[in-house]
Amino acid sequence: MTIYPSRLIEEAVTEISRLPGIGKKSALRLVLHLLKREPEVVRTLANAIIEVREKTSYCKTCGNIADSDECAICTSHKRDKGIICIVEDSRDVLAIENTGQYNGVYHVLGGVISPIDGIGPDELSIQPLIDRLNKNPREIKEIILALSPTMEGDTTAFYVSKKIKSFSLKISSISRGIPIGGELEYTDEITLGRSILSRISYQTGD
Amino acid sequence: MTIYPSRLIEEAVTEISRLPGIGKKSALRLVLHLLKREPEVVRTLANAIIEVREKTSYCKTCGNIADSDECAICTSHKRDKGIICIVEDSRDVLAIENTGQYNGVYHVLGGVISPIDGIGPDELSIQPLIDRLNKNPREIKEIILALSPTMEGDTTAFYVSKKIKSFSLKISSISRGIPIGGELEYTDEITLGRSILSRISYQTGD
Repeated sequence: MTIYPSRLIEEAVTEISRLPGIGKKSALRLVLHLLKREPEVVRTLANAIIEVREKTSYCKTCGNIADSDECAICTSHKRDKGIICIVEDSRDVLAIENTGQYNGVYHVLGGVISPIDGIGPDELSIQPLIDRLNKNPREIKEIILALSPTMEGDTTAFYVSKKIKSFSLKISSISRGIPIGGELEYTDEITLGRSILSRISYQTGD
Repeated sequence: MTIYPSRLIEEAVTEISRLPGIGKKSALRLVLHLLKREPEVVRTLANAIIEVREKTSYCKTCGNIADSDECAICTSHKRDKGIICIVEDSRDVLAIENTGQYNGVYHVLGGVISPIDGIGPDELSIQPLIDRLNKNPREIKEIILALSPTMEGDTTAFYVSKKIKSFSLKISSISRGIPIGGELEYTDEITLGRSILSRISYQTGD
């Protein structure tokens, strides 16, 4: 057990080390760093943490992080409400938004099916998705499944696609294959194998 | 530039990513984690950060972190005031305390001489060390230099030892060599070379 020079340091280290990926050593380094900063800077940090927790809400339509009742994407008139991209969490929305390649809307599941972690379909926002499709039977044309190519992601994609099969929708999935700029010889065999099976026709430009 | 789903998230990410070793991506991960925690937990974290900054002070004798005017080590009657261990910062005090092998007191320099970073001898707590030696000419018998075996640490050790030469003190340095449990063949040649030059006589036990 580490001996701390003061009770306050110990408390701060304990609280900070509860954050994911931050152990006691890193927490102590952060605390000693904070001690060297101006009190004003430290108060700004602490307030930003409190504010983000107390004032952030979730979009009632898609489940994404929002400043108010509905998120900026769902309220935008520029977005195509006919395409819904299904993602695991808000981080994935951010990642896709930052590509600048997508103009539809989202549906955040809030996780993926993972029996080991005790997460079943009922823990995810799947029923709200079905309700959303029922409410807008004409408007929504396509569902894009944008889940990670892991066991859990694939299971979830399969489950969701089965649940929404009865709607007359185009269901697609983001493509998997060799990352752009990746070297063929260093690609793992599963990815490489799949990329051959799911080969796409070459565009010769004529 | 990343597009954030809300202004509050962006502010929290900006503040958190000012911490050393935490980039924008990690900061976002931490913010999204905080959003899932109870508001009470987040408030406890924020308060611990504010408290540690506003209420922590430094020991007037040794410069170590303290809850009050003087640190727990300097005020303890169990510690040998005759030996002062010179360290770079409070983290080193912690590291040495955690070995359980040292019973003297400390003097925290607050850094090491590093011209590249604009840190000269005047930026360090060297004059207070000399004042401390002048105030207790009989009591203090030994000075242990416990600085990192780097260019900056060695320079600082050399500078401090020259400054305190006039006092009749035993001056020592923590030993350098192959770490306990380390493999000889994987030790860098400088360390290995030094460990041969500064070899110590073998204790046969008779």
